[in-house]
Order: sequence, then structure tokens, then C-alpha cells
Amino acid sequence: MPLRIAERAPEAHDFPLTIGHLLDAALISSGDQEIVYRDQSRYTYRAFRGRLGRLASLLAGLGAEQGMTIAMMDWDSHRYLEAYFAVPMMGAVLQTVNVRLSPQQVAYTLNHAGAEILVVHHDFFPLVDAILPMLPKVKAVVAIMDGSDGALPAYAKGEYEALSAAASPDFPFVDFDENAVATTFYTTGTTGDPKGVCFTHRQLVLHTLAANAPFGVTRARGLGVDDVYMPLTPMFHVHAWGIPYVATMLGIKQVYPGRYEPKMICDLHQAEGVTFSHCVPTIVQMVIAVADQTGAKLDGWHMIIGGSALTQALWREGRQRRLSLIAGYGMSETAPMIAICHDRPGADGSEEAEMAALTMAGVPVPLVSARIVDADMNPLPHDGQARGELVLRAPWLTPCYTGNPEASEQLWRGGWMHTQDVASIDAQGYIQIRDRLKDVIKTGGEWIDSLTLEDLIAGTPCVAEVAVIGVADARWGERPIAVIAPAAGIVPTLEAINAPLAAAVARGEISRYALLDRIELVDTLPKTSVGKIDKKALRARFAQQPATMPTGKMLSAAV
Amino acid sequence: MPLRIAERAPEAHDFPLTIGHLLDAALISSGDQEIVYRDQSRYTYRAFRGRLGRLASLLAGLGAEQGMTIAMMDWDSHRYLEAYFAVPMMGAVLQTVNVRLSPQQVAYTLNHAGAEILVVHHDFFPLVDAILPMLPKVKAVVAIMDGSDGALPAYAKGEYEALSAAASPDFPFVDFDENAVATTFYTTGTTGDPKGVCFTHRQLVLHTLAANAPFGVTRARGLGVDDVYMPLTPMFHVHAWGIPYVATMLGIKQVYPGRYEPKMICDLHQAEGVTFSHCVPTIVQMVIAVADQTGAKLDGWHMIIGGSALTQALWREGRQRRLSLIAGYGMSETAPMIAICHDRPGADGSEEAEMAALTMAGVPVPLVSARIVDADMNPLPHDGQARGELVLRAPWLTPCYTGNPEASEQLWRGGWMHTQDVASIDAQGYIQIRDRLKDVIKTGGEWIDSLTLEDLIAGTPCVAEVAVIGVADARWGERPIAVIAPAAGIVPTLEAINAPLAAAVARGEISRYALLDRIELVDTLPKTSVGKIDKKALRARFAQQPATMPTGKMLSAAV
Repeated sequence: MPLRIAERAPEAHDFPLTIGHLLDAALISSGDQEIVYRDQSRYTYRAFRGRLGRLASLLAGLGAEQGMTIAMMDWDSHRYLEAYFAVPMMGAVLQTVNVRLSPQQVAYTLNHAGAEILVVHHDFFPLVDAILPMLPKVKAVVAIMDGSDGALPAYAKGEYEALSAAASPDFPFVDFDENAVATTFYTTGTTGDPKGVCFTHRQLVLHTLAANAPFGVTRARGLGVDDVYMPLTPMFHVHAWGIPYVATMLGIKQVYPGRYEPKMICDLHQAEGVTFSHCVPTIVQMVIAVADQTGAKLDGWHMIIGGSALTQALWREGRQRRLSLIAGYGMSETAPMIAICHDRPGADGSEEAEMAALTMAGVPVPLVSARIVDADMNPLPHDGQARGELVLRAPWLTPCYTGNPEASEQLWRGGWMHTQDVASIDAQGYIQIRDRLKDVIKTGGEWIDSLTLEDLIAGTPCVAEVAVIGVADARWGERPIAVIAPAAGIVPTLEAINAPLAAAVARGEISRYALLDRIELVDTLPKTSVGKIDKKALRARFAQQPATMPTGKMLSAAV
Repeated sequence: MPLRIAERAPEAHDFPLTIGHLLDAALISSGDQEIVYRDQSRYTYRAFRGRLGRLASLLAGLGAEQGMTIAMMDWDSHRYLEAYFAVPMMGAVLQTVNVRLSPQQVAYTLNHAGAEILVVHHDFFPLVDAILPMLPKVKAVVAIMDGSDGALPAYAKGEYEALSAAASPDFPFVDFDENAVATTFYTTGTTGDPKGVCFTHRQLVLHTLAANAPFGVTRARGLGVDDVYMPLTPMFHVHAWGIPYVATMLGIKQVYPGRYEPKMICDLHQAEGVTFSHCVPTIVQMVIAVADQTGAKLDGWHMIIGGSALTQALWREGRQRRLSLIAGYGMSETAPMIAICHDRPGADGSEEAEMAALTMAGVPVPLVSARIVDADMNPLPHDGQARGELVLRAPWLTPCYTGNPEASEQLWRGGWMHTQDVASIDAQGYIQIRDRLKDVIKTGGEWIDSLTLEDLIAGTPCVAEVAVIGVADARWGERPIAVIAPAAGIVPTLEAINAPLAAAVARGEISRYALLDRIELVDTLPKTSVGKIDKKALRARFAQQPATMPTGKMLSAAV
């Protein structure tokens, strides 16, 4: 048996990894540091600490107690940050509600989580109006009027700021078991009901510590005392990637943009000196578009990109505007940080090398163990070539899908968490996501990486958006087709789309089987509720259907 | 009750915070990265992992098992790093032996810890020869010949490299309770037997994660993938401040200097591109002296300084040579990282401001809660003025002094760990150590900070080393005297020594009661076994003794 400490000083402090302790050092160093909400309000970390006590007091006044689930429906705000801390710190569970789901799905997630108190921004009153009769467990609703002078709904117990002002800042927060559940939220696939994941205090504290480490590893960039942080990922989505917890732990200035409005976001960047954000590629494109229209400068703004692949085309667009884009990798089940990109040690310093390194999925952060495996869970080599399902271990992975033992068992089959992403890993630990397991395309016995093809095609000027899917083919098993939303005013041709692919074949980067013999044009690509391209819908539409535009003959060079 | 997760996937991986997991991400990203030993050997992280298995196998072959204490006596080496990992990873306890203690004290610590296997560098054979008869529990000794072709001592079971080469790299490391003890070592005061502290796997993993965070906070400097790390603190001394664990977790290049030889250290810096070290001020002085003699460049070398205060004079000497010095704070009981300096947010960018910020004790790292308290444990304000004993909470503080319940109880009196350092804390969290509790000087009702006086006096060209102590005084209660080792060829006068103090009085920085009316000259200042100035010895020598050189009258301006 390993040795246990048999003795302890009677008064030795037992230190649980609870979320409240993330504030300990921050409150010593950063009492005067600011937290900003849009152009509407700002206060200090010292005031923030008082508001955590007030929020806990007001919730307790509405009947909140340890173990109860309290649901938040708000845009990215200082109030959301307050809920990130105060609700778990009082021993309750914070449900971060995905307000983009259908009303039926939102009701399903609230009931499934057993939420008893709702904290709701007035933009979501119509949603709550529609579903409240379906929520028998809810016993109190707090309204967030956010400066609006509209009327409180009849079902609201009061308004957030008014209730907060009347509540005591001295809530008696106590320590408790670090394995208590702190947060829960729901992840949606393209099939079935949303699935609930949950994370404990211990998991989130460890995630915060480890998620911070890679910023130190990134030669180009460490999150530092002079940084100003602004999330551009919905705070209901996987703890806004956990970075609000990191920023608060480090005591740096934070800016919350509220409802995403491109001009407001650019204005806040400029007025508050924002240096660090994270978002999906769509938001970057939106920010770039606004900046190009208004002449806003994007210099010195570092963004972690996730959710979808960071294409090299988008990376270049960022670089041209001195916007620094760095890809990361994670998912709802992983809290989410698993990997983040950094400059490759020993690289030649060229922009090409930098771009290649920063647009991978990333290198695992500390305490993450990552493997690629075949269907029988045999590990595959990390040679940058072999492809297998990425499976993970880390201290902050959800232990289950709440109340869904079958899905939980599949998630953890063989003692590793299954990502359902097909990836390769190279000798320097760079993970490259090649495909979703369910989206893989096999043609003529060769695996085609749809994400690689999409990245190459996205660099073509005539393409606004692209998805590559596999469709059944009598001769080849499957063939890839590219579904393209054209850029305004230019009609893509098969030849134009195949040009970058042929170049990549010539460079030996992709198989010649990847050359396309069919493309499809659409106005926009269908998206899931979290903004990802819905390939299932695309396959349903195009797999069985004859081509809608003339397809080329399969290029003889390709087969 | 906070909610516990009631369900778990049957195969969900339970992730203990054990030291072996620090390697998980590093082995994925840095298999080809190097670990270097002097100019003698180098190998990859991949080989390092194999050597951990071999070391565990060879120790198991000598009877090592879980819970057993295994003691290391070596210079700073790759072998020591191997022991940092392999011994705890096999569930045994690593004792890092302070080889600078007297033979009797070394024997005391080995017996007290119950060490059963010793791993000993040949430089310490004479020490082991002398004490082995006093060590009845020791059942095996492994000799480190380190390239020497001397004979193995009769009591050695074999040589480290030979035994390692013959052992299997596939030791079956298993996971176990993160609260198992991983390391133990002994701290010496100036009185009594050395006191044992111990740290668990959980504590060291959390320390590693949190100790890494501030490198990200330091605007000037993050530990990054292109850094090359070389410890210049003995590895027996508080895990070499925990940085070998951080460097390994991050997978960066590491260089181990062996026995400290100034020329070797400067050569390794140059040949291996060392960018990051940590040491006590004495080592910096030694490195600077060698560089000045040999013309070696110190550019781009960042050093964390602890153990004793980083004086502004030394900081300037470093800056003149482009050597970047940053103070940190910790102690044996704290694993050790508690605080580290960084540039002050919002500072004016001047060198003076930078120096002032980087020569404090530091700002608390994440998860550290720090207070200054009066004798009744009442917290004092963080205004940069109020002085009280610094007390701490953090997840990695020793829970006791092994087998010493009285000292343990004192250490944790009131539920906070007592540092016995008198400090102030300012609004931005910068801790300034003013004195040791036992060294405080009170004169005319005013507290005098001996460390502040020492810093001011150290800037005088005629001073090589200085210590300020209090001696009893009939009229004033106590009076400070400065004990000075003069710089070669210059005899300090009371007037010269008082000049910088008078300037500081004029600037309002120190009390006029601090002006000296007595200085004492010595050849060198007496040091403790860990190289700190032994003020107890100085007080014993000078408190009762008449002044050895003419003292001035107490300056009328001062009283």
C-alpha cells in the first residue's frame, strides 16, 4: 500500500477543489480590476465578490438550497459570470440553458435537469411564456430587464438588479466536497433528445488550471496580466470553453458583450482594449466583415477558434488584418479543453509553417491522455498518417449522460471517452481531426478526409461555404461530393473547385481518389442548433437525388 | 447536501491526481524532446520514460515496494529527475536528502524518515561510509559512479547505470489513491533537530499546475515550448522549487548541471541555449562573476530568485548583463510556490517601476489564499503599509511536521499555516517580506524592516554582503546594527552606509529611527546549511559585545 499521511496538525486546513477557491488569489491581486458589460456598466472584482453574495442571498430567499438546479437564460454577461460562481459556490447546480434549441427541447432540458429556479433575460420571456406551463418543477423565475423599462412578467418574483440590491452581500458560503456537481447542460446531436452532461467542482477547478497552462506554452501568446478578455462563445455552451473561469482566476480585465451585435463587439474591442477572445469561425467572419465595412482595427486581438475547423483561408484573412487565430479542440463532454495549437518547436519561422501549426486541432493540454484507436480499441501510431477514432482520458470528462445509461456506456466503452472524431496525431502531438466517425467517406478502398477537402475548397474565391459528404456509389462504394454556397456573384465550376485538390494531389497531400466528379450549389448550408453544418441533412438531400448540375466525368487522373 | 453524481458509466475512467499523469500529455507532444546532463549525456523524453520503468524495476529488485522510503543523494541530474517520477509512481516515498547537513543530521533525517534504500552519488560515499553503521533500516545502496572509474563501495548492490541497463523498462506502474505520500524532506532552522515535511501526489500535481499559471501571468515571460530549463537550486531542496515537474509536464527541453561549477553552468547556458533557471542570490552573483571574467553572455536568461530577498542592487547588475531576474516566494512547508513577481499592471513602463515590481516577494499564484495577521490572528489591511505575520492556505501545504505534533500544531495554529515572516500586502497583491518574525527590530516604538535596510545598504559599492540585526538598547529598547562584509579594498564608513538610508528617510520610505549608529565589519557572514545568513549567530556574536569599530553618535536627525 502506498503510504497515507497518518498524522495531521489538528487545525491543518483541508483544501477542497471548489470553484470558490478560484477567487482566492484573484481577490488579493485584482480587487480594483474591472469587469465590464457592453457600454452599460462596469464594476471591480471587489464589487463582483459582493454581488456573488447578493446573488446567493437572493436565490436562497427564493428557496434555493444545496443540490437544487438553477437555470440561467441570458446572453454573455457579467450576470452569467456571477451565476458561474455564486450558484455552484452555494452548493447548487447551474444549468446553462441552450436558448437556441426549440421551445420543446428547452422545456425537455429544464425538466430533465429538474430546474426549480429560472433566471431569464427579457429577450427570452416569449420562450418562457410558451413553456412555463410544461415546467411543473419551476417554483420561481427571476427576470433580467437589462436596462429595458418593459413590464415584469406576472410569473417573475422580481428583477435581478432590484432583488440583488435588496439582498445581503454576506452570504455564508461554506466549503464542501469537491465532488459535488457544479454545472449541467445539454448537448444535441442530429438525432434523439438532447443529452445531459455534468461537471463537478473538482473537474472545473482542474480544467481551469490545465486550460491555463497552454497559454503559457504558446510561444506567440500567454494570457497575462495586461490582457483583456471577452468571450464570443455563448456562455451556455460548455462554460464558454472554460475561459471565464481562467480569466477570473488570473484576475484579468473582462468584458462581456451581451447579445452578439457585430458593431458592438468591434466597438468594445477598441474601447476596452480587448486582446483575447474565443469563438467559432462564423463569428470571426462576422467580425472581419464589420471591420472591413467600418474600418475598425483588429490588431492585437488573439482568438481561440473551435467548434468547427479553422480553415487556412480564414487564418490568412485574419493574418491580413493582424487578427491572430489559434485553433483549439474540445467538446461538450470534455468541459471542453482538450488541445490547443501553438507554434511548432523548431519550425522555420515562415508564415506557412505558423499557419500549418495553428490550424490543426491542437496539442493536448496537461493531464490529457489522447489516443487514436481502431474499431477494436487497438492504439494506432502517432505518425501523422494513421487515422483512428480519437479517445480520451482527463480529470474533467463527463462521467455519464444524465439518465441515459446506454449512451453513457457507449461514451466510455473500453475505459476511454469516445469523441467520434477520426483523427491522426503526429510525433509532436499535433492532433488533426480528419472527419466525424459518422461522416467518413471511403472510396475505392481509400479514406477521404472530408475536412481536408473542405479546407482546400474553402480557399477558392468563388466559395462562401462548403461541406463535403459521401454518397453511395455502385462502383466505388462511396464518392465525395462538395455542397457549396457560392460567394456572391461567382458561379463555381467543377474545374475551379478541383483545382486546389489537384494541386494537393500533386504535392502528395491527398489521395487522387479525392478529386471530385460532382458538386452541388445551395444558397446556404443547413446548420444544427449550435451552428455546425448539418451533414446529416445534406446527405438526406443529396445522397438519393440525381445531381442538380452537370457533373464532370470522373477525372481519369483520379481513378 | 450538494448533489453528488449518482450515476457513472461503468467503464468511466477515474482520474487520480498522481504524478505519473504529469507525463501523459508530455509523452504525446515531446517524445523527441531532449533531457541533457552536463556535457556528458543526453536522451529523449521517450527514453526518459523507458528509464523510469528501469529505475522502478531495479528498485523493486532490491526489495522496494509501495509505502517504502527511498532516499536520493545526488547533485542536480537526470537521475534525480528520474527519481522524482519513478519512486512516487511506484507508490514509494522519495526522500530528497540535504547532503549539506552534518553527517549526524543526515543520519538523523534518514532514520527519522525510515529510508530503506539509498541511491548515492560517489561524491557522497565518504558521508555514507561515516553514517551507514548508524542506519539499521537501510537494506540496499545503489551507487552512482557518474562516469568515474573508481571502485564500487563494498556495501553497494550495484551501479545505477549498470543496474538500470539490466532492468526491464516495462515496470507495471498502476494508479492509486492521489493522497498517497510522494515525497519527504527535512527543513532546518537554527535550533533543534531537522523537521520533516511531506507532500502527497495530489499536492504535487496541483502545485505543478498552479506553479505554471504565473508564468503565463508574467507579461515579460511565459515558460513556453521554445524554453530550455536548467535548475540551479539543489534538487534536494523543496523539489527544486517544483519546476522540474512543471518543465516535464510542459515537455520542454531540460538541462541538468550536476555539481554546480560556475564555468560548466555558463557553458551549458551557452551550448544548450538555456533560457530559464531559478536559484538563490548567491548563485546569481557567482554566475555574474564568471561571466564577467570569461566574457560569457547572459542574454535572454530568465531566473526566478528565492531563498533570500532579491536586492535591487543585484537586479540592476542582472539587467546590465541582460539577465532577467524575477523574485518568487515560498518555503519548505509550501512545496514551495506561493507567490511570484510580475510586471505591475498599469505601471509606467520605466525600469524603476519594473525593478520595484520584480523584487517584491511576489503576487500569490492561483489557489493560494494569503493574509497578514496580528498576534491574535486578526487580518490586517492590504494597504502596503500594515505589517503582520504572513499566513497561508493552499492545496499543497504540508499537513504536519512528521512525528512532531507540537511543532505541527504551532505551524497550523488557527487553521492557517504560519510562515513566521512579517509581511505587508498591497492592493495589487504584491507581498513584501519585511522581516522574519524572530528577527524583527523595534526601536523607539517603531518597527524597523531589516530586509529593507539590507536592500538599501547592499546598493553601496563598498558592501559585499550585509545583515541588519537588532541588539538590546537601554534607551531605545532595540537598535539596528549592520554587519557588513566589505567589498575588496574599500572600508565602509558609518557615513557611507547611512547615506542611502538618509535618502530613503528623505523620500519618506523608511522611519528616521532606522538610521544606524553602529556598523560591524566581518570577513564573511555566517550561513545556515541552506545558505541563508545566520542572524541568530550574528546576534549571539554582536548583541552582548562592545562595538568593534568606533560607532557614531546616534545622528540627531534620526531621533
